[in-house]
Amino acid sequence: MSSPTVRINDIGQFLGKTVTIQGWLYNKRSSGKLQFLQVRDGSNIIQCVVFKGDVSEELFTAADKLTQESSLEVTGVVKEDTRSPLGFEIGVTDIHIIHIPSQEYPISPKEHGVAFLLDHRHLWLRSKRQNAILKIRSTLIKAIRDYFDEQGFICLDAPIFTPNACEGTTNLFETDYFGDKAYLSQSGQLYMEAGAMAFGKCYCFGPTFRAEKSKTRRHLTEFWMIEPEVAFMDLAQDMELAQDFLVYVIKRLLATRTEELEILERDLTILQNTAQGSFHRLTYDQAVQKLHALGSDIKWGDDFGADDETILTQEFDRPIIVHRFPKAFKAFYMKEDPDNNQLSMSMDILAPEGYGEIIGGGERETSLDVLEQKIKEHDLPREEFDWYMDLRKFGSVPHAGFGLGLERLVTWVCGLHHLRETIPFPRMMERLKP
Amino acid sequence: MSSPTVRINDIGQFLGKTVTIQGWLYNKRSSGKLQFLQVRDGSNIIQCVVFKGDVSEELFTAADKLTQESSLEVTGVVKEDTRSPLGFEIGVTDIHIIHIPSQEYPISPKEHGVAFLLDHRHLWLRSKRQNAILKIRSTLIKAIRDYFDEQGFICLDAPIFTPNACEGTTNLFETDYFGDKAYLSQSGQLYMEAGAMAFGKCYCFGPTFRAEKSKTRRHLTEFWMIEPEVAFMDLAQDMELAQDFLVYVIKRLLATRTEELEILERDLTILQNTAQGSFHRLTYDQAVQKLHALGSDIKWGDDFGADDETILTQEFDRPIIVHRFPKAFKAFYMKEDPDNNQLSMSMDILAPEGYGEIIGGGERETSLDVLEQKIKEHDLPREEFDWYMDLRKFGSVPHAGFGLGLERLVTWVCGLHHLRETIPFPRMMERLKP
Repeated sequence: MSSPTVRINDIGQFLGKTVTIQGWLYNKRSSGKLQFLQVRDGSNIIQCVVFKGDVSEELFTAADKLTQESSLEVTGVVKEDTRSPLGFEIGVTDIHIIHIPSQEYPISPKEHGVAFLLDHRHLWLRSKRQNAILKIRSTLIKAIRDYFDEQGFICLDAPIFTPNACEGTTNLFETDYFGDKAYLSQSGQLYMEAGAMAFGKCYCFGPTFRAEKSKTRRHLTEFWMIEPEVAFMDLAQDMELAQDFLVYVIKRLLATRTEELEILERDLTILQNTAQGSFHRLTYDQAVQKLHALGSDIKWGDDFGADDETILTQEFDRPIIVHRFPKAFKAFYMKEDPDNNQLSMSMDILAPEGYGEIIGGGERETSLDVLEQKIKEHDLPREEFDWYMDLRKFGSVPHAGFGLGLERLVTWVCGLHHLRETIPFPRMMERLKP
Repeated sequence: MSSPTVRINDIGQFLGKTVTIQGWLYNKRSSGKLQFLQVRDGSNIIQCVVFKGDVSEELFTAADKLTQESSLEVTGVVKEDTRSPLGFEIGVTDIHIIHIPSQEYPISPKEHGVAFLLDHRHLWLRSKRQNAILKIRSTLIKAIRDYFDEQGFICLDAPIFTPNACEGTTNLFETDYFGDKAYLSQSGQLYMEAGAMAFGKCYCFGPTFRAEKSKTRRHLTEFWMIEPEVAFMDLAQDMELAQDFLVYVIKRLLATRTEELEILERDLTILQNTAQGSFHRLTYDQAVQKLHALGSDIKWGDDFGADDETILTQEFDRPIIVHRFPKAFKAFYMKEDPDNNQLSMSMDILAPEGYGEIIGGGERETSLDVLEQKIKEHDLPREEFDWYMDLRKFGSVPHAGFGLGLERLVTWVCGLHHLRETIPFPRMMERLKP
């Protein structure tokens, strides 16, 4: 074929021209002399119209036999089609059939149970809705990285194999490491603190692991976290950074993925509010008071439960930042509040609409003595933290950072119920395949 | 302080102005009434000149007591300094000392053994040379992602926990997965093949794991791989894509990291050649002939050893692409050469200067029957590949891709001897800390 091979998303540049697209039959309907083939190529879906008068008898008959997910090359003329979201259709002149499934494609347009769909995740990815979610994920990944790269951060990959546990040894996956034990990382933060002292600003963005025996909609055993860390930064600046970062990412999403958000029927109001910044801020104390007013029976000193986060965030029209949590339930490395030693210089960002925590962070303890005490209190193996303590022995500086759970962000921006659709191949307590 | 706080890399915008920088003392020397403080902030190093006549007696004395890696804020006037690589220095007016190490910093400018340095990796990162290598790594990561993102690829993270082994079960790290066994991924490729059928073009870029009992300079147990996969692509297009990609990445490196390449004393000739494209291409047959002419005793049918790659690549002034390897030592999913069923539609890209393989890839087998046979021959557990076979049952299309080992790329472009310096916290057979 001498016509150019193009991707469907680029087809607008070829109006009136003859092009070839390569893809799969997503759906079809016919009416007498016309067949309407919905063809997808991964970039988008386009309607290809086969008119009996335009093609050979053989081709028209062959096209009629195409089944869902047949692979093919379609050649034809690009025409305007104002009724379709894409704005174009193809008037077919030729079809080259590559492969017709010998059995029926398992995922039909009818409803399927979630377990069935997850068993067929390798095929489910082809569905319009799953395709849209993972394109949004890809766009968010790029926006996240672009934000930090543009701000002069160094991407510093944290190790996955670790000899120790950042926040205790429960819920860790363990592996034999040439006769020793290694644990899969739950967080790159301690390593990022070393990085911040070497590069000023750095981040890691990789998979992290939790062996939680939990089957809730908010848990995956394998999930991706972005963890920036900055030297000479305090809690106030950390909150500013996190807000600025989220605003940037949401703006990018709204600028580039409107079509996919529409496929997901996402109400954009809250996302548009978020893109304006000015996140609401509450101290933990204020948040607890607010929760009491909303009917929660949370006790001062308790961490928020999922229900608390739900009722609290439903009160606001954009994310909220809650800061200065009691130190008792925060990690050992959190700096104590100099104004109240029961509090920590910590902060969480809770997504609105009941979604809850997407970011957790704060200022890190710089005092060697306080850290020694905390490691004891948390019953952590002191010798595994020798290297970490070196960061306070040699040129200790104030520093802060945060962690964002990618799948929680995708779940919220897509308006989904469960995290499992936001990662290409989800891993959960009872799900290791495909 | 009312002067702006700036990063050293941005200081050229403040010539003649008073600024504050925040960082650590990297080195110093003094001569009577002058002290020359080399201060690093992670973005760069700048000379800060303390003149006795410009500051108080106390400050001059305090500055004299600063030791390596003391943390501090320096305020002063930005001046031109044509002798330094940065082009600027600071005439100090004030210093705010944050922390002076109570013991001597372990990594002095004198020589240290590699084991000692690796034990202190969390501090070693601060050294000029390590800092330069990891900045180059960060730049390459961004260039790699930008290339694929700009070409319309979707970033599709492959799972780390896998129930099966892409290329056999040897050298796998195993973990208990709620009573089942899970293996840490060696490659995301099979998953990317599912992704290519859903998105047309996709890539994964994440950590991969090999439990090789090998202590050579070319092995890490944990390393990062980028794996693009494209539907409707053949071997010839795959080689074009890989070359175009490498050219893009090397161009970006040369455009943005000259200072770091200079710190590493890297000869740029070969990198500049590489940026021009036109990689040399040899079939495996031609490469074996060439190796024989160069004195190797390799037998036809053998994979290249490290020595073979070394002597072969030293013959060329840029990377070479070797294609159509014997199928016997390639993975089960490699497509057979339709012109010679002893060969596979595979290709490797070997870095010049003796570095050897950095990319491996090729066209994938599309025939269900051939794949069934191969899975048997390779003695792989057939039931674990049910989902993979679905990709050939439902809309099978020609497709191809490749994998690039990030640390091998960084090693080559930096001109290093060992992979261990190219990843922030290297993991090797006998190295799990810090």
